[in-house]
Formats: sequence, C-alpha cells, structure tokens
Amino acid sequence: MLRGRVTIPTDVDIIEETKEIMELWGADAIRDCDGTDMPKEIEELDAKIYATYYTTRKDNEWAKANPDEVQQMYIMTDFHMATEDTLRIRLMEGLHPDLLKVNDYDDIKRWWEVMDRTIGEPVSDWSYEDGEVIINAKKYHEYTVSFLAYIIWDPVHMYNAVTNGWTNFEKQITFDVRQPKTKVYSMKRLRKFLEEHPKVDVIRFTTFFHQFTLIFDELARQKYVDWYGYTASVSPYILDQFEKETGIKFRPEYIIDQGYMNNTYRVPCKEYFAFIDFQRREVAKLAKEMVDIVHEYGKEAMMFLGDHWIGMEPYMDEFKNIGLDAVVGSVGNGQTLRLISDIEGVKYTEGRLLPYFFPDTFHKGGDPLGEAKRNWITARRAILRKPVDRIGYGGYLKLTLDFPEFIDYTKQVCDEFRELYANAQGCKAHCIKKIAVLSGWGRYKAWGNHMVHHAIYYKNNYSYAGVIEALSGSPFDVDFISFEDILKDEDILNRFDIVMNIGDENTGQTGGKYWSDERILTAVRDFIYNGGGFIGVGEPSGYNYQGRTLQLATQLGVELENGFTLARGKYYKEVKSHFITEEVCDEIYFGEGKDFIYALEGADILALRGDSVQLACKEIGKGRTVYISGLPYSLENNRLLYRAILWATHDEEGIHRWFSTNLNVEVNAYVENNKFCVVNNTYESQSTNVYKGDGSSFELKLEPNEIKWFEIEGKV
Amino acid sequence: MLRGRVTIPTDVDIIEETKEIMELWGADAIRDCDGTDMPKEIEELDAKIYATYYTTRKDNEWAKANPDEVQQMYIMTDFHMATEDTLRIRLMEGLHPDLLKVNDYDDIKRWWEVMDRTIGEPVSDWSYEDGEVIINAKKYHEYTVSFLAYIIWDPVHMYNAVTNGWTNFEKQITFDVRQPKTKVYSMKRLRKFLEEHPKVDVIRFTTFFHQFTLIFDELARQKYVDWYGYTASVSPYILDQFEKETGIKFRPEYIIDQGYMNNTYRVPCKEYFAFIDFQRREVAKLAKEMVDIVHEYGKEAMMFLGDHWIGMEPYMDEFKNIGLDAVVGSVGNGQTLRLISDIEGVKYTEGRLLPYFFPDTFHKGGDPLGEAKRNWITARRAILRKPVDRIGYGGYLKLTLDFPEFIDYTKQVCDEFRELYANAQGCKAHCIKKIAVLSGWGRYKAWGNHMVHHAIYYKNNYSYAGVIEALSGSPFDVDFISFEDILKDEDILNRFDIVMNIGDENTGQTGGKYWSDERILTAVRDFIYNGGGFIGVGEPSGYNYQGRTLQLATQLGVELENGFTLARGKYYKEVKSHFITEEVCDEIYFGEGKDFIYALEGADILALRGDSVQLACKEIGKGRTVYISGLPYSLENNRLLYRAILWATHDEEGIHRWFSTNLNVEVNAYVENNKFCVVNNTYESQSTNVYKGDGSSFELKLEPNEIKWFEIEGKV
Repeated sequence: MLRGRVTIPTDVDIIEETKEIMELWGADAIRDCDGTDMPKEIEELDAKIYATYYTTRKDNEWAKANPDEVQQMYIMTDFHMATEDTLRIRLMEGLHPDLLKVNDYDDIKRWWEVMDRTIGEPVSDWSYEDGEVIINAKKYHEYTVSFLAYIIWDPVHMYNAVTNGWTNFEKQITFDVRQPKTKVYSMKRLRKFLEEHPKVDVIRFTTFFHQFTLIFDELARQKYVDWYGYTASVSPYILDQFEKETGIKFRPEYIIDQGYMNNTYRVPCKEYFAFIDFQRREVAKLAKEMVDIVHEYGKEAMMFLGDHWIGMEPYMDEFKNIGLDAVVGSVGNGQTLRLISDIEGVKYTEGRLLPYFFPDTFHKGGDPLGEAKRNWITARRAILRKPVDRIGYGGYLKLTLDFPEFIDYTKQVCDEFRELYANAQGCKAHCIKKIAVLSGWGRYKAWGNHMVHHAIYYKNNYSYAGVIEALSGSPFDVDFISFEDILKDEDILNRFDIVMNIGDENTGQTGGKYWSDERILTAVRDFIYNGGGFIGVGEPSGYNYQGRTLQLATQLGVELENGFTLARGKYYKEVKSHFITEEVCDEIYFGEGKDFIYALEGADILALRGDSVQLACKEIGKGRTVYISGLPYSLENNRLLYRAILWATHDEEGIHRWFSTNLNVEVNAYVENNKFCVVNNTYESQSTNVYKGDGSSFELKLEPNEIKWFEIEGKV
Repeated sequence: MLRGRVTIPTDVDIIEETKEIMELWGADAIRDCDGTDMPKEIEELDAKIYATYYTTRKDNEWAKANPDEVQQMYIMTDFHMATEDTLRIRLMEGLHPDLLKVNDYDDIKRWWEVMDRTIGEPVSDWSYEDGEVIINAKKYHEYTVSFLAYIIWDPVHMYNAVTNGWTNFEKQITFDVRQPKTKVYSMKRLRKFLEEHPKVDVIRFTTFFHQFTLIFDELARQKYVDWYGYTASVSPYILDQFEKETGIKFRPEYIIDQGYMNNTYRVPCKEYFAFIDFQRREVAKLAKEMVDIVHEYGKEAMMFLGDHWIGMEPYMDEFKNIGLDAVVGSVGNGQTLRLISDIEGVKYTEGRLLPYFFPDTFHKGGDPLGEAKRNWITARRAILRKPVDRIGYGGYLKLTLDFPEFIDYTKQVCDEFRELYANAQGCKAHCIKKIAVLSGWGRYKAWGNHMVHHAIYYKNNYSYAGVIEALSGSPFDVDFISFEDILKDEDILNRFDIVMNIGDENTGQTGGKYWSDERILTAVRDFIYNGGGFIGVGEPSGYNYQGRTLQLATQLGVELENGFTLARGKYYKEVKSHFITEEVCDEIYFGEGKDFIYALEGADILALRGDSVQLACKEIGKGRTVYISGLPYSLENNRLLYRAILWATHDEEGIHRWFSTNLNVEVNAYVENNKFCVVNNTYESQSTNVYKGDGSSFELKLEPNEIKWFEIEGKV
C-alpha cells in the first residue's frame, strides 16, 4: 500500500486522532492553520512538518510600534451627489471600522483623489476634517473620493474570525514588509522563527506581502472581493518608487479605475499594467530574500497561492527565480487545480482539497461528504492532465471526527491520488491540440480570467467559466495569451491550432477596445483564413465599432442584435445536424446563452433558442470557426466542446483516438510511461467502448467513480 | 342614427355592394386604392370622393424619358473581407434586380464611398467596372461600398404586387419630384389630374416625394425597413443643395451610418440632424406648392402618413404652414393612432383601421374579425384621449363580403366611433399629469421612437413600446423631447410632472452618449431633486461612463450589472409592498425584463426576478423615481404605470378621481363638454366602482367592449 503525498492539519487538542488519521489516509506531512497550533508530540512523528508563517501579521507589537508602516489600501467611496455648493463625504461610510483607518498621515493632496464623476475630472478644491472630505462642489454633480487607508485588521484574519465566530482574540494588524523598517525587521523575525522551530521542515508562507482586494462593510459582510486585486498593495513609499522607476506620474485612478478596481471584467489601461509589472518585480525580489533565508536554515519554502499572494504572479517570468520549493493552493474545481499544477519553477505543487474543515461545512446537517465528492471528481479530471504533486487539507481536523463517511471517502481519495500520481508522474499527458485562450489579461490570469472570486458561481460567468473548466481536464495544451502578446509577436497565433475568445462584449475576458485595433483584427482573420480554428463563446470579439458588434462577425457567421439591426430581414434559421452535435441527446444546455444572436450568410446553425442562434459554425478560407452562446460545465458540454475543437481543426477523423464512446468516461494517455487510464467521471457505473491511440477499441465497464489503468499494448 | 365620419374603399366590379356597405356602416366618403379604380357610378353618390394620388409614380412614360431624375437611394453593401491585394464587391449582391439600378451616371467618386471598416476610414484607391467596385485593399481588412441606386420599381408598389401576387402589370418607377424637370412636370401633371377628375373632392396624396427606407433582397423578401428612414430621399442634385445651404461637406456615411442608417435605435450625429432638417424644409416648401394647386381647384388636400412621407415630419414647425386639409394614416394600435391624431395644423385627421382588405388577412381560414377586434379595442383607448376626426378602411372591399361577421362588427365600430366623437369633440380630454418622454429623437419621432417598423412586434422593443402604448390611452399630456431640447432650453423639464426614459443602453431611445454630458445630467438631477418625478424603463440613462452604467443610478437606486461590479457585495433584496403594486394580483409581466439589475442603498424593491430587480422606487430630495425593467402593454401593466406616475408625483391621494377600481375599465372625462365615459377594454363583461372628479363613486356593470356615456352631475 502506497503512502505519502498527503498533508493534514492538526491542533493541540487532537494529537491521538491526528496520528490515527495520518495512518488511515497515509499522510506524510502535518500542518498548522490560522487558529490552530502545532503540538510538540506531532513534531516528533515521522512526517514533514509545515509551519504556517504569516509574513504580514501575527505581530501586533511591531505593527503598533510602527503605525506608519502598516499596510495600506486604496478605497473609493460611494458616489455622492452635491445638492449644494459644499458636499461632505464621510470616508468610512459603508466600511467596517475595525478593518480600516484613514491614512491622513501622508500627504493627502498628493495621494488622494477627489473625482467629479459627472465630468470625469479630478477636483482640486477640497479639504479633510474629522473623517470627512469637504468639496467645493458643483450642484448635481456626483463625486467620489479615492483615499488611502491602513489595514488595521487583516482581512483574512477577520474573515476567519467572523466565519468561526471567534471571541476573545486580538485583531491582527497587517504590516507592510516592503516598508524600510519593517523589511529589516521581517528578515530578523523570519530568522527568529526559523531558529525557534527547528523541527519544522517546511515554511508555508501565508503568504508574502499583499492581500488581494477584500473589504468588509459595517455589518462585516463582504463588500468587495477580487482574488486578483492589487488595491491592498499600495503605499506612498511604494508609489514613489513606482514613479521613479517607470517615469509615470501616478494617479489613484489607475488603481481605482472608476471604482471597478481593474477586476477581471475590465480591460486595464497601460498604466495599470505598468503598475502590476512594477509590483511583481519588487515583490519577487523581496520574496527571494525570504526564501533564501529559509534555505539557509535547511528548510523548504512553500507559498500559499492565496491571501497575501498579490504580486507573486506565478505565470510571469520572475517567479521562477524566486527559488520557492513549492506552491500550495486551494482547489475549488479543475480550473483552480490547473492554476496550481501548471506553475513552473518550483519543485512541487500541492492542492488543498475542499471542503476546508470549518464549521460552515462541518456542522450538524452539513454535507462535507457531498462537497468532497463534487470537489474530487472535478479536480481529478485536471489532475489527470497535469497533476499536483501532493494533496492536502486544512482547518480543524477535529471537526471531521463526527463524519466517519467523510473520513472513509477521503482515504479512498488519497489512495487514488497516489496511484494515479505513480502512473502519470514524470510524463506529459498526451495532448491532441494546442489552444490559445485570448483575453485582455492573458498569462496574468491564466486559468483564472473567467473566475470572479476563486471558483465561486456567478450568474454572469458560469457559462464562460464552464469552458475553462472543460479545458482543464481535456487532452489539450492550453495557453493564455493577451492582445498585447499578439501586438508584440505577430507569429504567436501560428503556434496554436485553436484560438478561443470567451465572454461578454466590452470585457477584459473578450478584450473590448482591442477589437477595434487593425493589427489584432488582421492577425486573427489571417490566422483563421489560413487554416486556424477559432471558437468564440458568448460575445466573442464584442465591441461595437464600424457597423459590427462582433468584430469577427464575418468569420463567425453570426452577429449580435443590440437593436441597431432590428430593421434588417433575418432569414437564416434552419438548424442542421453536424459532427459537433452528433452526441447531443436532447437539448444542449447553454446556461445564460444569448438572447439575440442572428446568423449571417454562410454559417451553419446547429442550435437555436427561440430566434437566437446558440451554436453555429462556418468555414472561411481554409479555417473553421465555431460560435457557442455559453457552455456551463457538464460532461455533455465537455464532449460538445471536444467535438467542436476537432471539427475546427479539420480533425473529425481523429475522434477515435484515446476516446470513450460514453461521454461520462474519459481516456487519458501517458505515452512515455506506456500507460493510459479510463476514468468514470460520475458516481454511477458506466459502460463504454474505449479507443486507443492506434484506433483499436475494447468494451469496458466501470464502477462509480472508478479509474482503470492499462499499459499501452504493443509498446511494452 | 348618426352617419358619416367613415371612409370606405371601392372598385369597378363592386358598385352595388359598395352602396350597401356605405349605407350599413354610415360611410360618407369613398376612396380608391393601389390596384383599384373609382367607378363612375360611385362618383355620383352623395359622398366625398377621395382620389389616391401618386405624386412619385404611376407615370412610367415620364420616368423612362427622364432616367436621370428617377428617385435614388443610398445603399451599403455587405461587409467583404479582402484576402488578396484586390477586392471585388458586386454592388447588387443581395438586392432585388427589379428594385434598384446602380447610378454610375453621376460622379461616383464624389457620391459613393468605399469604407475600410477595419480602420473606419474611407478608401480612395478603387474603381468601378461591370457592376463591381474593385478596391486596392489591405489583406484581412473588411470593406463596404456606399453607393447610389435608382429606384426602378417603387418599393410600396413592389410590396403590394408581391403580397397580392399580381401578374401582368408594369412595374412603376419612382421619379423624384424635387428634380428640376420633374418638378415642373409634376405640377402640370397634378393640374391635369385635377382637371380630369372634377368629381373628386379630396386629393389623397400617397404620398409626397420620398419613400421611407424599404429594400427587398433577390428573393423579394424584406431586406431592410425603417419607417422613419431617409435613405431614399437623396440625389446628387439634392445633396449639392444641402452642401450649399448648410456649409457641411456631405459624406455618404452621414446617411449610411455604418450600415445602421440612423434607425430609431441609433443616436444620430449632428450632420444627420442637419440633413433631415434640410430635407423637411425643402419637402414642406414643395408640398405646399402642390397643396396650393389642389386648393386652386377647390378640392381638399389630404396626406397619407406613410409610404413616400419622408421629410413631411408632421411634428416639426414647417408642417403647419403647408396648408394640408387632412392627414390619414394606418392605425396599428394606440401609439399609431396618436401619431395621427396629435398632428396639428390640419383641419381633420383620419385613422385607417386594420385589417387592410388584402388577401393576407381576408382568405379562407383568416381571422379578420379577430384582428379588427384587437385593433379597435387598442385604438379606441387612444381615440378617447385625442380622437381622429374620421376612420376608414382600405384595400379590396370585395374581399370582406365572405366575412359577414366582420361586416357586422365594423358597423358597430363605426356607430361607436360616431357616438364617442360627438361626445368628445371640441374638448380636450381631462389630463392629470404632464409627461415628457426623453429620447435621442424627441419630437421627430413622437409616439414612434419605440417602434421599429410601424406597430410590428420585435423581441427587443415590445417591453418598451408597451409603455408608449399605455400612455397613448391614459389621462396624461404626453410630450416627446430630445436631449437637444434640454440643451437649448434649460427650463424645459420644469414644464413636466414626469420625465421618462425608456429603452436599452446606448440607443437613440435612451440617449447613449448624451448621458455623459454634464448639462444633461445636472438638468435631470436638478429636476428630480427639486420634486420632479422620473420613471426609467429598461436601461434608462444607460451609458457606461465614470463608474456607472446607469448614469442616474444614484437617483434610481438601481444599477446594471455588466460584470464590472460582480465583485461587489449585493445585499438589498427585500421586496416591499407599495402603493404602486397595490393592485397587482400575481406576478407582474415585465416582458424581456432585465437579467441583472441590482439595488443600491435607499431604493425600495417592489419586484425581483431571480436576483434581478424588475421594479423599484426611491425618494431623492423632493423627487421620486421609479425603475421598471420592462412593461409590455396589458391592462394590468397600464394600471401599474398609472400608479407609478401618481406615486412619482406625490399624488397617491388623487387616485380616486375619474377612476375605475376594476383595471379592465377606464374612465375618460371631457369636463368642458360636461361628459364622461366609462369604457370596458375587454371582450368580457365587467363590474366596477367608478370614481368621478369630485371623489364620489358609483357601481357599474358593463357589457363586453361597452362604453357608457354620462353627464358630469352637479355641473349641468
């Protein structure tokens, strides 16, 4: 029986149980968590010991002694309409008073910005008094104030405290390791920690220096969250450096972005890109200093991909130079698994599976087993493509004890993971196509550009995130490229079989204004016309300009009706049967879909909803395009996308290679390892016909959730 | 028994039947139609004789002798992508060859425009040969050609011929009365007609000079229709004049508008407004010449509001000076009735009710009675507010003979119309509020800005047109104002109790970019804050700018979620009961509604669909606002809007004045005439409580469709 590759949490009041579960699950590493401590007895076990290390908090003494170096964030107030010549805006309105404290210590006239949102210009005639900005205003104009605030309660600590109903604890202040005094201090503090924890093998940085955007309102409810947000990475000290290095005169508006704060739906301005590029260079440099210290003490440095991860940008070049040994992150589904496992430049990656052992799931009437099953079956698809090297769990282990079925199931998961890892390791899973997902963000938000908050459902995006989820477990090489990448390297598209553009018009996901750039339009049309495949989902190339809303309308053979073309006759409404829809049994589930997409000449319509095209395809030049209105993740839709990709690459013939005729079952090949597996992605038994790489096939029955491993015949 | 106020069509083969129906319906006027002739015997009857006069067609001899003065229109080709250095575009592709003929007689380099739609610039390097434009193109750019074509088959004649399956007839060419030779000739031709038709009392111009945009494709299907479109009003001769008078250098793009041709959904550019203003001045001048001639012969001049009506602009100032005796138009519903009956400066108006006596309705299995009932019950609401002076019918009278129930019902309609006209004439129906519908077009498209084609259903607009339909029969003074009106007259809003903005973001209906104009924003906010009522429907004030999509989000208390604010916590979801929804029984029907509108602080949510606000209201300053996601016309929604208007004007107390407690029944008061009526707007019997102007009430039962007339007690 295999052992290892599994990390579990512990706490001081659960020593014996930790040992039992360690044995049962075959865990070889033990960790502490926010709100738990590592018992001495456990440190002595034959297991790697992870110590969660909080770079930016859990040292209020320092934070209080150095209030000028407490981490800051930019906040924009709500919109306020002036009804008189003077308008007073209370800055802390709608913000939790324990979370933030206005920074009026630095030069507010330089670092704050009062915006007249009615004319879109900053205002100079204003003052600050008793928590209020007082503006010499124009009647019926609306104003916002962008200001700096100190983070006097770490947002994740606050989240954990509120979620768990903690009482009698001190609110941890976030200090900014990049400030001069704190930087020096933090290096000493890290050394001290290392010296005081000789039994620890792995320093699990939770995390480095800057929290993603996370704000709570007066009622401690989440007010704003952006897992990719840089708003809490700022301070006059850093912004001064930014100005000097880039020569860009800083404006709060570059961060605030009209209050949208450059979230994934936005097409960011050049200055924002310059800012995050500056940040990631600086953050990487400083992180390397800490990692070097950890190595000096003979320990491993692991980064948690979350919380204060801002600036670490695991898909940008500097990351590899930091020297981290490992990255661990939370796995919400296949996309977030790949977000971790695709990271390069570390020795190993670890996926922290769900559910987290917190009372929001582990309570009477809760369903941790159900959550675990859903989590594993989606994560496993992605693991089979590109495995993390380890899995693990977090929270209060004690909470699981009342759920013996959960404990049993997790044992199966651990065994299954070890088996598949043994079979798949050191070998790239066989990929049949190269796919580029083209967005405004590209590599910056690889696997995550279609998320809002980490793996959370939103009505506006599940129909798009579903495509990324399908890709995360499919036999394709997936790359995430931006419009800037095309502008920099005119040959980039030719490295791919398929280009995809997924999302709503005018968003960072599809690219907005980039679609009025001649260079982008000609590059993409050239790619398609000369044989490339293009798959557009939602409102691909959507930007109203020069008589088109979908700028690739000619290529896709469909256009969006926004009222401007209601006066046109629309006569293409015949639905055809097609290779792409061959395995569709009933109605295709397009999720939100689109209410009014109409076909142009030359397109084949494959599905309509009312009068609106939901699925269409077209041949143009040597290329092929597919339009899909939306594709929430399901096994049926996964198969539909698979067929669309094969069709768009003129590879209908290739479908019977490493293929299961039953779409609930998938086949993954590890050619270099001479292995392949057949995996049942449901919790029901399945029968299927399995095709191997040479086109030969055999019948197979699988138990619920079963993976079967085979050697590739003829190659042994 | 009353007689009169009714016009019927006739034909040479139906003389006796015409007399019988004339007697039965009490008609006092008889007309010919396209495809029928007036029999001599009928001319001798005691009835007004209308002669349909085709100013621009039915004289192919002239048209053929003067091909240079045939009417022209601007056409834009489809988009064509260049895949080589040369691109050939065949101009007549997708156009019916009998309808149009390319005008390569005039200077094509001056009057045509080849557009590179990829960069949005005109191209100069092109030539024309054998029906094709040959462009020196950039690879993968897309091009369109805007060109002039002669209208060699009048579009309405073509429509009538195709609809009725006419054979063996000559296709009528449209000539342009504004051209020098044709102008002189047309005056003579009119005089000749007048001389040859001494028995005719009314010259029914069908119509003046320019057809609205109506294009058919190769299969004779409607390719593009815009009842307000000016594309078929152009020629080099006219455009030269336009340039001289306005000093604007003309570009085809001003008309073509990226291919959208300035339809009602577009926010037109200043040059387009300048062009239509020029056209209406010139058209009015020339129309007056013709009307004067008609008067010289002692006859009346009536204009048909349709077909070649472009440039007549009945709501603009010049119209009154033309001296027309009457306007007649097609009545599709309440809005189109008001479109006719609200016209000022004529002696009388006439509504041509539906169905038109054409075989598309009057065929075996057809339902002309049903169509007549639906038409009358909606039109009648509007007639009761502002009556047309006459009603009438058109088409082939013969076709009605197989439908005796239709003939009987129409007799009732005629009697009912005469009764209500007698009671309501010479008196303004009592109005309780003044309402401004604010749009990009204002008075230009009074009552019609929310139509696409004349009273036709479209998925994108029925939820908005429903509001206009409700208003057309409600006791409000309704005015249609534009953003330019606000910019010209800062006091204009104060003349109204309610301002409404209805439609989707970025459209001519809501105003698009005007909502980023400080002057508009402050004017509307000032109006609201100081006590005005504002009702927004759909995406009112919708234009993404400076952190808001709905620019009146603060005022309305709701905002549109387009992805940019998904990261924000949204906690206002409690639905309250309210005065506005007091009479709502079950679910409100919002039609298309909106998928993701969320509430801001301070709004009261009155209805949700999923998480999306469909109805909300807010108090701000002394003003009140109501947000509605969409409101297709129904009696329930009509009542909802009524209550919203009362609430937004702080007039909840006033609801029991001229009011029926049963929302299927309405009360109209004619105070100066000391009359009021109670009308059952359904084809079922209804019981209600009727409140009079003094707040007193009485119970009443009404038969299906019944109107009961009363004197206002105490005033007699």
